[in-house]
Amino acid sequence: MNNGWPYLTPGLPDALFVRGEAPMTKEEVRAVVLSKLRLTDNSTLWDIGAGTGSVSVEAALLAKGGSVWAVERDPKAAALIKQNKANFACDNLTVVEGDAPEVLHALPVPDRVFLGGSRGRLPEILAAVAQRLAPGGILVADFVVLENLTETLQVLKDLGFRGVEAVQVAVTKTVPVGGKHMLQAQNPVYIVSGSKG
Amino acid sequence: MNNGWPYLTPGLPDALFVRGEAPMTKEEVRAVVLSKLRLTDNSTLWDIGAGTGSVSVEAALLAKGGSVWAVERDPKAAALIKQNKANFACDNLTVVEGDAPEVLHALPVPDRVFLGGSRGRLPEILAAVAQRLAPGGILVADFVVLENLTETLQVLKDLGFRGVEAVQVAVTKTVPVGGKHMLQAQNPVYIVSGSKG
Amino acid sequence: MNNGWPYLTPGLPDALFVRGEAPMTKEEVRAVVLSKLRLTDNSTLWDIGAGTGSVSVEAALLAKGGSVWAVERDPKAAALIKQNKANFACDNLTVVEGDAPEVLHALPVPDRVFLGGSRGRLPEILAAVAQRLAPGGILVADFVVLENLTETLQVLKDLGFRGVEAVQVAVTKTVPVGGKHMLQAQNPVYIVSGSKG
Amino acid sequence: MNNGWPYLTPGLPDALFVRGEAPMTKEEVRAVVLSKLRLTDNSTLWDIGAGTGSVSVEAALLAKGGSVWAVERDPKAAALIKQNKANFACDNLTVVEGDAPEVLHALPVPDRVFLGGSRGRLPEILAAVAQRLAPGGILVADFVVLENLTETLQVLKDLGFRGVEAVQVAVTKTVPVGGKHMLQAQNPVYIVSGSKG
Repeated sequence: MNNGWPYLTPGLPDALFVRGEAPMTKEEVRAVVLSKLRLTDNSTLWDIGAGTGSVSVEAALLAKGGSVWAVERDPKAAALIKQNKANFACDNLTVVEGDAPEVLHALPVPDRVFLGGSRGRLPEILAAVAQRLAPGGILVADFVVLENLTETLQVLKDLGFRGVEAVQVAVTKTVPVGGKHMLQAQNPVYIVSGSKG
Repeated sequence: MNNGWPYLTPGLPDALFVRGEAPMTKEEVRAVVLSKLRLTDNSTLWDIGAGTGSVSVEAALLAKGGSVWAVERDPKAAALIKQNKANFACDNLTVVEGDAPEVLHALPVPDRVFLGGSRGRLPEILAAVAQRLAPGGILVADFVVLENLTETLQVLKDLGFRGVEAVQVAVTKTVPVGGKHMLQAQNPVYIVSGSKG
Repeated sequence: MNNGWPYLTPGLPDALFVRGEAPMTKEEVRAVVLSKLRLTDNSTLWDIGAGTGSVSVEAALLAKGGSVWAVERDPKAAALIKQNKANFACDNLTVVEGDAPEVLHALPVPDRVFLGGSRGRLPEILAAVAQRLAPGGILVADFVVLENLTETLQVLKDLGFRGVEAVQVAVTKTVPVGGKHMLQAQNPVYIVSGSKG
Repeated sequence: MNNGWPYLTPGLPDALFVRGEAPMTKEEVRAVVLSKLRLTDNSTLWDIGAGTGSVSVEAALLAKGGSVWAVERDPKAAALIKQNKANFACDNLTVVEGDAPEVLHALPVPDRVFLGGSRGRLPEILAAVAQRLAPGGILVADFVVLENLTETLQVLKDLGFRGVEAVQVAVTKTVPVGGKHMLQAQNPVYIVSGSKG
């Protein structure tokens, strides 16, 4: 068990991560993302477009006998992931700096993939994932851009993924105002998941 | 590890539970509820107004060295929980048929409490929980009735709970229509969490 | 001013319309749809896939010096529109039973178009609308199917529409439960609007 | 008809209003608020806590034979309302600078009241509104603070208001990103409406 996070349940508070300016999957949405990833103790996960690495860190804390590969092209974000990795003492997390899909070829076969970024070359990346993902392996992706969402749904269908589902999660936080609770929306996120047929 | 659910991550598909007519915390919201519960391997959880027992079952699968107490006054719902307990082979889950707060007095001291039902006697139940909850223990509650939400926020403040937060989670599923994806909303749920001061 | 609805502001209560099984744009979303339609006293509106005719009726009540053309292929729905037209005494509303885009050719040039149904032949219908719509005229469409939404956004771009925007409106009603208010979600709707360049 | 806004339908674009730092009811929510206000040509409306005056201006444009009274305690906001009034040439809109409920006593009897601000003294203001509102008159209020919402629902019940309903409207805009559409949430707003018994 990690010193910094003694609990079994995912969804670590956002404030525990070093963030900089990299995008981050927020805690409640991250809890749902991890739920859809169906991790086991020895999962091998690619986190493509890992941003701050919050999903990578959580997955590494759960899949203690497995490995997590955080792929990130932005050097600043990659540095953040390394910092978060160190803060949570995740020895089974490797930061892979470079462009997807190119860098994916050198990585071990995954049984789980999370796609949270790198949207510029979506079809290429999905094709590479479909090729390398272990049979029965699970892909999860999240989206805030409508066209990326529907394109991915179409590509996954064409690639023969099974059990593909899309769900929108809209989280509204409350902030304290004079002892009362004011609504403060976060952007809704679509989460897509499916397994390789 | 349970035969029926080989994964570490919470948020079991709704379809895995026997439901009848009892209310159930749906899978994505349940993943967030469990996230807020911050379970450990040996947590002791009261699930008050357990309904179908979906939160109880998930908590029992996670807190393998702990115990879960599913409190439910409706005999039909209690029977459902027993069935779900059996289906998931949760030996550390006990169904407690009866009214809260009365039946709470006989239960072991919890370090986690989930309040998902039994809203008729909310202040009494919250007072009983506050009295018995271990110091630093965590309370999570979910709400679809506005007045129950704000009443609970006030009572928790009066009882000295710390770090109280409320978050609304609105999940919209998609259903397949001719190969496309149609939006289908679930009712938004407010999730309140805080720890005993 | 209509006998049945003495107010200037759109968003008539759903209960005022005869509904049957036809789909209906609900009152709050309808208020936003009408807002985006920017009606004047003498607007000419096509309501394609008019369903129960609730948008047609409201538009006819507002554009008293104009005309509204409710296009609907389902005879049962067309009958409902006629009933709603009669109930609200809308002489400037004509029900056009038949398939879009074919029946559109016989209609007068519109300066406003609402597309709330007839999604099977979306690109054809959009092309016909783009051809006939008066220069500067406004198109509004609503969607609950993700692929129809993004396809429409692409087609409108290709057709040279200007100021195209998409907005999601998620309405959650409350229902009384023992003197309290319980949240009950309606399906979120995307509303697209833009003007002919 | 106003030079600046030639349309009959409410929900003017936010960008048409001078804003400064005053809070503003956004266009889609404003369209729903005006819908619930059920304005007629000769309505007398109090807009209490008028902020930028966007609701006041829209109401004044609709109720041409009536009058709108924009009550605002903040001098900067009151100046903004005057500017917006001038920009839209609303002669039937009067800015009332001062504190509610005190300044309400000098105003003509309203048949419509919108409460969008001045939440510090909510029960007092509601009592004053209930006393002065014409029989059958309509009150609409919007809320982003949960406790203000439920308190108002209770007070309206105690004051004998009829047909009280509460609805949450969550608007998510899209912003262009490289020719695609990215979701950007606005804070959800609760809208309460009811009529004096």
